Amino acid sequence: MTVENSLRTTPSANNSATTANQPASSPALLFDTINAYQKTATIKAGIELDVFTAMAGVPATVAAIATHCHASPRGIRILCDYLTVLGFLTKSGGQYALTPDSALFLNRKSPAYAGGTLEFLLSNEIKGAFDHFTGAVRKGGTAQSQDGTVAPEHPVWVSFARSMGPLMVPAAAGLADLIPLDQNRPTKVLDISASHGMWGNAFAAKNPKAKIVALDWAPVLEIARENARAAGVADRFRAIAGNAFEVEFGSDYDVVLVPNFLHHFNASDCVRFLKKAHAALRPGGTVAIVEFVPNPDRITPPAAAGFSLIMLATTPEGDVYTFAEYSDMLAQAGFTPPTVHSLPASMNVAVVARK
Amino acid sequence: MTVENSLRTTPSANNSATTANQPASSPALLFDTINAYQKTATIKAGIELDVFTAMAGVPATVAAIATHCHASPRGIRILCDYLTVLGFLTKSGGQYALTPDSALFLNRKSPAYAGGTLEFLLSNEIKGAFDHFTGAVRKGGTAQSQDGTVAPEHPVWVSFARSMGPLMVPAAAGLADLIPLDQNRPTKVLDISASHGMWGNAFAAKNPKAKIVALDWAPVLEIARENARAAGVADRFRAIAGNAFEVEFGSDYDVVLVPNFLHHFNASDCVRFLKKAHAALRPGGTVAIVEFVPNPDRITPPAAAGFSLIMLATTPEGDVYTFAEYSDMLAQAGFTPPTVHSLPASMNVAVVARK
Repeated sequence: MTVENSLRTTPSANNSATTANQPASSPALLFDTINAYQKTATIKAGIELDVFTAMAGVPATVAAIATHCHASPRGIRILCDYLTVLGFLTKSGGQYALTPDSALFLNRKSPAYAGGTLEFLLSNEIKGAFDHFTGAVRKGGTAQSQDGTVAPEHPVWVSFARSMGPLMVPAAAGLADLIPLDQNRPTKVLDISASHGMWGNAFAAKNPKAKIVALDWAPVLEIARENARAAGVADRFRAIAGNAFEVEFGSDYDVVLVPNFLHHFNASDCVRFLKKAHAALRPGGTVAIVEFVPNPDRITPPAAAGFSLIMLATTPEGDVYTFAEYSDMLAQAGFTPPTVHSLPASMNVAVVARK
Repeated sequence: MTVENSLRTTPSANNSATTANQPASSPALLFDTINAYQKTATIKAGIELDVFTAMAGVPATVAAIATHCHASPRGIRILCDYLTVLGFLTKSGGQYALTPDSALFLNRKSPAYAGGTLEFLLSNEIKGAFDHFTGAVRKGGTAQSQDGTVAPEHPVWVSFARSMGPLMVPAAAGLADLIPLDQNRPTKVLDISASHGMWGNAFAAKNPKAKIVALDWAPVLEIARENARAAGVADRFRAIAGNAFEVEFGSDYDVVLVPNFLHHFNASDCVRFLKKAHAALRPGGTVAIVEFVPNPDRITPPAAAGFSLIMLATTPEGDVYTFAEYSDMLAQAGFTPPTVHSLPASMNVAVVARK
């Protein structure tokens, strides 16, 4: 008799605490949420021990995985069972195998390997900020430090640039597809908070006459420059170091890319920034905001709506904005009414408008 | 145009990275799992700031909740939106309201209030052990300290007894219903790792001639004694302080209760303990093991299967055991084949056998 079977046949006397037509109350969601940090620890251990590569291509037993990972069979068995519960592995006949997404993102030999994102996502600047989260709710902004991650030259953005780039490649290619440039003349793309440079690189790759101007803090730009070199577009790459609200952009850009930048600021600073972007564009030029954009209810879709939490924990005034809010900001800055577009393999969307 | 609408009408050119009949690959599960610790921080902040009591009985605006909680409206808005995403609140017309489960478990004025469980569940001994989780997988047991939470007189069990009792009340009543005692003669119930004493109290409440013998570490027993007094059964309550593997139990018990105890130990120690319980029972007496019991696949149901993770992180050798494994242990200890029963409002089941 399995527990599942017996639970189905347990006499209803056990359920005397609930009335006939009401769903039984349960603390399951509460405990699952209080214990959610254990899921973080589980995926972190799986990545750190490289369990996913241990079964790349072929299902593996506990013993084989333990050998690959230099870990105890008992620890590996419990870890892999829970990775299966979470949906990263499948289990059959005593062997574990990768799901298609795990094969793509968690096998260290995959070009789309995303295990490196732990460096940024679980950094003290991000994860550590949530140790002060109750204080952030009280205060209405980060309680970890005065300026959080928007402090000048904050080193977390080096970590972001180093670890988050590969994941942006499909979305960046999608965005470049979405905004075709004139192939008959030299064009210019300004990449704000360029970071790893993947957004600009995608435009350079698709448009042989396009020059990319990447803006970010100086140490971050070194990573963007390396990536431009690796992509074979270094001869069309130029950098502007400094604060995007303060430095000179130059002028006559065909496109200003604004990927995952505006959510760090309040709405009036966003408008101030968009006016500056507007001034830097040639007539008819395009601004492309890449962002987490929740629906007007601000509770769907979950990933976009939930991103506001990270902004509350890590910045003084950052937030997610709805499409209506971005439309309003863009109108105030002089742009045409925007359109919104999904991006491949991304929880971000592109909000696109013209000068 | 909402994002939702526009996403439905985005040209399929954006999805060129995926082929027609394959589900699109997505890092959503990976990011959601890496960021899962943020859910812990969210429910912790909600409980610490008492947002749930702020809307007890009547839906409330951000402003009203912020006033009740002495917190910023901006922080409360972002917190309550995410508590809605997580399923603890509902949101309608700019007001937030409690779900039935939140009204039961999270309103501070509810008799089933479970916010106090944070003291144990997020204690350094439990949550802190997951800071060393990769090490625990390598080693095959807790990497936080030598003996983890099974060290003699470990203070975390005082915290457990103080905070987890109220949640056990429905399950304890269900267990007492399941094991009727002879009402015509004095009976004796031994409550192993009695903790808050709720399991024993339920038997005392249902059986006026039953005497309860609670076994735990001495400081924990003070809490059990208080709770027996509060339940009006102090005159039938007796305590045995010490290690359950070492101290004398006495004899002729009608029932030995073993709630959430065996998962801390390896299988052969469990058998050793069950033999001792067997010896303490009168002929025909009952042992009732209350436990997380996964199906033979060890990956379902999630809460029971996942509990092995906590044992890996916090104990040297603890684990969850299947019904077949408990049946085998009980047979080795001389018991009849067991039956398994669900318990109200609990993720535990009862495995019940006779001498």
